[in-house]
Amino acid sequence: MRLRNVKYAKELIHSYPGYVILKPKNHKSKWQELFENNHPVEVEIGCGKGKFIYEKALNNPHINYIGIEKFDSVIVRALEKLILEPLDNLKLVRFDATHITDIFEENEVDKLYLNFSDPWPKNRHEKRRLTSPRFLKRYHQILKDNSMIEMKTDNYALFEYSLMSFNHSDFIRIIDLSLDLYKNLPSSNIQTEFEMKFVEENKTIYYLKAKLKRS
Amino acid sequence: MRLRNVKYAKELIHSYPGYVILKPKNHKSKWQELFENNHPVEVEIGCGKGKFIYEKALNNPHINYIGIEKFDSVIVRALEKLILEPLDNLKLVRFDATHITDIFEENEVDKLYLNFSDPWPKNRHEKRRLTSPRFLKRYHQILKDNSMIEMKTDNYALFEYSLMSFNHSDFIRIIDLSLDLYKNLPSSNIQTEFEMKFVEENKTIYYLKAKLKRS
Repeated sequence: MRLRNVKYAKELIHSYPGYVILKPKNHKSKWQELFENNHPVEVEIGCGKGKFIYEKALNNPHINYIGIEKFDSVIVRALEKLILEPLDNLKLVRFDATHITDIFEENEVDKLYLNFSDPWPKNRHEKRRLTSPRFLKRYHQILKDNSMIEMKTDNYALFEYSLMSFNHSDFIRIIDLSLDLYKNLPSSNIQTEFEMKFVEENKTIYYLKAKLKRS
Repeated sequence: MRLRNVKYAKELIHSYPGYVILKPKNHKSKWQELFENNHPVEVEIGCGKGKFIYEKALNNPHINYIGIEKFDSVIVRALEKLILEPLDNLKLVRFDATHITDIFEENEVDKLYLNFSDPWPKNRHEKRRLTSPRFLKRYHQILKDNSMIEMKTDNYALFEYSLMSFNHSDFIRIIDLSLDLYKNLPSSNIQTEFEMKFVEENKTIYYLKAKLKRS
């Protein structure tokens, strides 16, 4: 089943429109309709090969999960998981999160996960970081009042940047953080593919949880 | 000159009232008079044996420095440095910083240093941590508008706690931070005694710099 040759990715993705949503803008304000329930909607931006979001969905059948990923060649791995073991409460979205406010209505999202996001180390790429002020503003728009953002990374520079960015925001309050997640690992932690690799390499994993206030 | 037997500490401290201020409350709102100039006043809480604050004073003759330390047995080491090489712009204060607002007037302090403070790891001792909300309120009282607080620690739990505490404060904004100060050490960094030891042991040193807003 594993497709090593990613040139078939696009084809496979188009064959499963029930799993990979190709026109997510059409579902703005109507995601719960797509899931055919009124359960909360949680989103992972940059779901990669989907291990994290798939396990989340498997463990929490009463929450709707949406995994957003930019690249066909990566999201196809998440799709394979769904093909092998379908889950009603997980949808994949191939989309650039820069335009996330085009696919979610105000107040539509209950929780956001940012796992091992691209650190974009160069200063001129600062705006692309998923915790830059302009992304935080977008999250503010789509997230509900008192909803949570959870972030994990192995990249200390991105974590430093994110701590400052969150600190400068008027609408986000950090409520939990760890400078070494594996020193005191919560039993609820779900590893991403990157996380498994980094932990094996003995890299430090940073974590934070922040609450968003709409008013 | 080094006093190994700290029972002489008290005696030595009392012999140098020009170096160690024993009744600091008398100088509230009048520290610049004591220094006989109108230079800025920078304070280190928990100056320990004084290496950091002594070198700061040595390098910056136009800034007045005050090192606060609770214990006779420790501050006496800082006093020894002053006895060997006197500095006009450094005063030591043997005092419990819990009552710091008793010794500084509103707006009297230009900068605050917290180096390798006691982490007080037990929850019931949270209030004793020098970055707890009640200490931040005190700093807010004595520090000038736009003044800086700089913190270094090897203790990740204290640093996590401090990041959250600063994030929750309405009047403090983190403007710089490092999760591994020695990865990119600023040339201006002055090591404390603890820091020298920890760096030798390859411990990670955390750093943050925050700006305080009075209004």
